[in-house]
Amino acid sequence: MLDYWNEYPKIQENLIQVKKLISQRLVINNKSIEEAITKFSSTGGKMIRPALFFLFADFGEKKDYEQLIKVAASLELLHSATLVHDDIIDDSPTRRGMPSIQTRFGKDVAVYTGDFMYTSYFELLAECMSHTPFLLKNAQAMKKVLRGELTQMTCTFNPDQTVNDYLRNINGKTAELIRLSCHEGAYFGGADKILQARSKRIGSAIGLAFQVYDDILNFSLVLGNNQKPILTDVQQGIFTLPLLIARDSQPTVIRPFLEKPETLSRNDLIQLAYYVESFGGIAGSLDFAQKLTKKALAEIHELPDTKSKEVLRHVSMQLLERTY
Amino acid sequence: MLDYWNEYPKIQENLIQVKKLISQRLVINNKSIEEAITKFSSTGGKMIRPALFFLFADFGEKKDYEQLIKVAASLELLHSATLVHDDIIDDSPTRRGMPSIQTRFGKDVAVYTGDFMYTSYFELLAECMSHTPFLLKNAQAMKKVLRGELTQMTCTFNPDQTVNDYLRNINGKTAELIRLSCHEGAYFGGADKILQARSKRIGSAIGLAFQVYDDILNFSLVLGNNQKPILTDVQQGIFTLPLLIARDSQPTVIRPFLEKPETLSRNDLIQLAYYVESFGGIAGSLDFAQKLTKKALAEIHELPDTKSKEVLRHVSMQLLERTY
Repeated sequence: MLDYWNEYPKIQENLIQVKKLISQRLVINNKSIEEAITKFSSTGGKMIRPALFFLFADFGEKKDYEQLIKVAASLELLHSATLVHDDIIDDSPTRRGMPSIQTRFGKDVAVYTGDFMYTSYFELLAECMSHTPFLLKNAQAMKKVLRGELTQMTCTFNPDQTVNDYLRNINGKTAELIRLSCHEGAYFGGADKILQARSKRIGSAIGLAFQVYDDILNFSLVLGNNQKPILTDVQQGIFTLPLLIARDSQPTVIRPFLEKPETLSRNDLIQLAYYVESFGGIAGSLDFAQKLTKKALAEIHELPDTKSKEVLRHVSMQLLERTY
Repeated sequence: MLDYWNEYPKIQENLIQVKKLISQRLVINNKSIEEAITKFSSTGGKMIRPALFFLFADFGEKKDYEQLIKVAASLELLHSATLVHDDIIDDSPTRRGMPSIQTRFGKDVAVYTGDFMYTSYFELLAECMSHTPFLLKNAQAMKKVLRGELTQMTCTFNPDQTVNDYLRNINGKTAELIRLSCHEGAYFGGADKILQARSKRIGSAIGLAFQVYDDILNFSLVLGNNQKPILTDVQQGIFTLPLLIARDSQPTVIRPFLEKPETLSRNDLIQLAYYVESFGGIAGSLDFAQKLTKKALAEIHELPDTKSKEVLRHVSMQLLERTY
């Protein structure tokens, strides 16, 4: 998936170094597990978080290349660790086009594999940022991500969940780590405080928009008759923005679907998706995400005129304008 | 279980402070989960790790009390986090006399709860030891614990597992954290390098002996007709020292039991326990553990003559001379 960065060879080269470092760190004495986790954590994704990190690092003057690679690797490792544990909870059969760790080795190995990734992440931080405020910021960010996961879990199957609950959850679960990636990039690249503050705002907006678009996708794929599992979120009791907006607009129609979502048939779900669209759930969510995207782009516009600024603008638009 | 320390009011008082700090750190916005994890991580155990930590801290001159409480809390939190995840893997219905987290809230909550504890642990470290070598030592210790768990898992159901495999696994899984507790006590208390090195050796010996006695207990409880679940380790494919010694002594008798241990009946297991005793598995393990205990006591003997030395001697003997 690093093909995604073909047009940006400098980022691609950095990401390859990050992959190498991650592979070196995930050594255990079971070759098949080692291979699976190394593949998982360095082959699969687009590595959006380290990529954003490097883009922001370019705005500063200080360049400790080794440190930058380590910080970027820590971000990807933390993200991977959360994915491995998420897959246990979701019982996901696949992740990044491969069988998920717990499908291949059982949930037991998956629990410890995620823990092992957290540990490698923590080891990297101890090595490369122990004398900076970002050690504590990482711990706090990780806490926020997990609070988001735990809160989302307690909101699960709750038909009275509010839009604010949803926003708070995705702010922890998704936006926090993207915000941290941008902020760390600006800081470890040596950018000034104003640019650091801006990087956080851009990260927040991108992170929230990214998740909202993802949640819209879950509904619009149904409407587009795509192959993707249909509305699995709903069946797992996870009610996202399009659904919550539609429920607030037409509670008497939508609420019954939210009472026992695990029992909904495929046809019920398709019906629900149409309702969500008809009652403005998709449009309202799109409007919300587009406002966030605009906000991010407006902040990016204020950055110094460099090559990285242009790339950042393109990448943000690409990320946030996926087909839905 | 802090009654265990009734005779040592100074330690007990310190441990109460540690409990308080842990409760403050495990705040999430779901009261029932919060209550469960707080209870779990501060009510249940004897808090042996922070207790050893405080005993060793007493040999130094430097006393930053707030820092000592934080380091001690980090040790207990790390231990608790590993227990929560272990219970998922063992499917344990209870822990410390209460329903385990995953029994009460499901494995989903248990995965994130363990992660949340790891994070709180990490946050404490970031606050209290970022400028010391122990930040990295903690990361490495955690990695060793998890490597031990993962390796034990890959040794599971392997009838050819060696005594060395077993020792390497328990060295990671149990001894590492006890060794770290002793070492951190000496370091953060301000003891000299010689005492620090000694604290590590004592911790290693206590840690290994502690686990070996625990594994002996699993067999001798069967022989003593106690209420405890009988030889659950064996059924889960975990082959511990008594069994491995017996197998090496009489392979033709013992090996068949190890081929499909999950299918063994209660009577098979009782038969196996008798074989293990007859073939010297218990005696050999006891001998091994007693040598370790002696080693620990000999090293303790070399410590400066203080009240803590006496307590340490008593506590080690108490810990390592449980009924079996």
